[in-house]
Amino acid sequence: MRDSARHHRLVEALRTADLNALVCRLPENVLLLSGYWPMSGFSFVVYRADGEATLIVPSAEEAESADTWISDRQLFEWALVGAPDPYEQIGVYLKQACRGMKRIGVEREFEWVAPATNAGEMAVPSELTWRMVESAIEGATLVDATNLLMDQRAVKTDCELERLALANQVAAIGLTRFTQTLEPGRTDAEMVGLVEAAIVSEGTRLEEVSRVRAFAQVSSGPDTAFAWRPCVISTDRTIHAGEIVVLELGVVVDGFWADNTRTRVAGGEASEQQLEWHAIVREAQQSAIGACQAGVPCDEVDRAARSVIEHRGLGDYFVHITGHGIGWRYHEPVPFVAPGNPEPLRDGYVHSVEPGLYQEGFGGIRIEDIVAEQGGTHRVLSSGDRSLV
Amino acid sequence: MRDSARHHRLVEALRTADLNALVCRLPENVLLLSGYWPMSGFSFVVYRADGEATLIVPSAEEAESADTWISDRQLFEWALVGAPDPYEQIGVYLKQACRGMKRIGVEREFEWVAPATNAGEMAVPSELTWRMVESAIEGATLVDATNLLMDQRAVKTDCELERLALANQVAAIGLTRFTQTLEPGRTDAEMVGLVEAAIVSEGTRLEEVSRVRAFAQVSSGPDTAFAWRPCVISTDRTIHAGEIVVLELGVVVDGFWADNTRTRVAGGEASEQQLEWHAIVREAQQSAIGACQAGVPCDEVDRAARSVIEHRGLGDYFVHITGHGIGWRYHEPVPFVAPGNPEPLRDGYVHSVEPGLYQEGFGGIRIEDIVAEQGGTHRVLSSGDRSLV
Repeated sequence: MRDSARHHRLVEALRTADLNALVCRLPENVLLLSGYWPMSGFSFVVYRADGEATLIVPSAEEAESADTWISDRQLFEWALVGAPDPYEQIGVYLKQACRGMKRIGVEREFEWVAPATNAGEMAVPSELTWRMVESAIEGATLVDATNLLMDQRAVKTDCELERLALANQVAAIGLTRFTQTLEPGRTDAEMVGLVEAAIVSEGTRLEEVSRVRAFAQVSSGPDTAFAWRPCVISTDRTIHAGEIVVLELGVVVDGFWADNTRTRVAGGEASEQQLEWHAIVREAQQSAIGACQAGVPCDEVDRAARSVIEHRGLGDYFVHITGHGIGWRYHEPVPFVAPGNPEPLRDGYVHSVEPGLYQEGFGGIRIEDIVAEQGGTHRVLSSGDRSLV
Repeated sequence: MRDSARHHRLVEALRTADLNALVCRLPENVLLLSGYWPMSGFSFVVYRADGEATLIVPSAEEAESADTWISDRQLFEWALVGAPDPYEQIGVYLKQACRGMKRIGVEREFEWVAPATNAGEMAVPSELTWRMVESAIEGATLVDATNLLMDQRAVKTDCELERLALANQVAAIGLTRFTQTLEPGRTDAEMVGLVEAAIVSEGTRLEEVSRVRAFAQVSSGPDTAFAWRPCVISTDRTIHAGEIVVLELGVVVDGFWADNTRTRVAGGEASEQQLEWHAIVREAQQSAIGACQAGVPCDEVDRAARSVIEHRGLGDYFVHITGHGIGWRYHEPVPFVAPGNPEPLRDGYVHSVEPGLYQEGFGGIRIEDIVAEQGGTHRVLSSGDRSLV
């Protein structure tokens, strides 16, 4: 079923930008435009300012792509012995869909991309794609539509909010499993396996859920002092009683992302500093969440968290921003909940709130939840135990 | 420690192509050129025809990237509050490393890319990267080096072969877990969780192994008739006794890939057709593996598998090619073990041999192993139980 709120916004944005159409192939944007999350990532959408659209997918994905809201669906043969060149087949469909156009928006500046279902191998537009598109559009001008697409993505529709709530519900399966299974003697990598397996296995059982993948990162003990890093390596380090363990968890459910962090102490007995710092981080997080509301500037939300921490003299240990957007990708640029960003939150924004404290020798503590601005207030989409012990 | 065989080949290839350097940022090529597998995928290598090289990485990856064989390593700040624009920092380092150059090879035509460790979000070169590179190289010409890089990657050095053997050893943990845990009552997605968790948890314990990720796809019963597809969805379908279950398994170990498929019948009792078709597939696979040797044309290897199947009148059910290259990515284009490809195998090639039979109503059977051409003969890198029951 077409998300008519999204459709109207897209058509409006295309007209305002004087574009005849968007031509997209990144899985995250194909999902935004068509409601279909590509399996291999080798799919294209033409979304036209006149309200019509075309979805081009491999015939191998015929069954799954049938639930797109785009009625004009074209299949090309691929991955079978004797199949013709896929680019030639796609080019023919693009040509039909783009006939007579003057200005077409494309994904020219996506440096960070979300995987398709087949996350082990990503399909991305290189010069090969651009040559095919340019040859198909017969002299129309290609215009970078990265900002247009990210503006669209920043504000979620009600349907999309429910998909993100569902992704967070699936992620909570992993957060609970983390709490239930964390014990001294396990390794960081073992915790990754337990959390991811629970999410994939139990998440797919939920009604309305089809495809699930989880990306957990677990660190423990002194290593958690570096848990602020964008990528943490989950090693075979054995977790000991009384050590901090940080779980950073990205989950994708049918193309919609959740991002959560939980910090626990293994073995049930926490130190005074662990308890105190955890309480400060949680207070900072609740302060920031409490500030979330359409119209409030991003730096005010960041300040709500940061001032709690600075007030305790720990400002130097909160080294990263308070939050980032999320939706069709693990991290989206809007909103950027950071010092010095005067942009206000808007209804429909979905983002993380994730203050943290990191000190070499001691370790790191972060609590991350996902918040949506909705109906003039905020709604916490994520759940699961947030306690330290 | 530098892989001197790789280094000499790279320098030779750059000189032959009249290139002053390669500038790469895809994780797979950064690994090829530097021995370092990027964590977030936001790293760059300048590899020069004079034998010198520069590795540019986020300061967050300082510890892990220290084991690169490139001595000139430059760190840029990123992901910390107050960090300057990363592209400006990277641009300065690129400018230093590329001074006075005329022709520089870049990754212009990579449509399929391997993830960095952080597989939930991929960093790829978009127009933003190309603009930064063009501004840094001060008028030098950018030349597409995709073919040069893939030619380099097709022929593995002895060191690289051992890394791929290790990746297959880690993958075998998952193949064994699959055999041990498959039983009626489990779901496809549950099998995915069990297999992936075993690989991540036990794989990281192996000496010489640091970072492991697994990407399993499991289908069962009638769904296996579609297991030829490039991406199979692992659902909450419950597996019943006597049903075929197909495990497609991609594993990456410190940037080097393994790709295996196993087919089992759940519950221990297979039908006559299941047994017969499985035996035919295994015979076809062994026939193709037996034909693998430097100098043998790819289509002859394909024929060795296909003729066994055609001889039984089942040619129509073997719908895909016999094998593909593998190394720094799940699927690499060389060698392409397919009908009509006269290109000969060469020593150092590593590729899959994966005949399969798929019939709607009955199901699908595939056995996939990884083979290297080495020392004038072939070496099977993968292991694990291949039996149906």
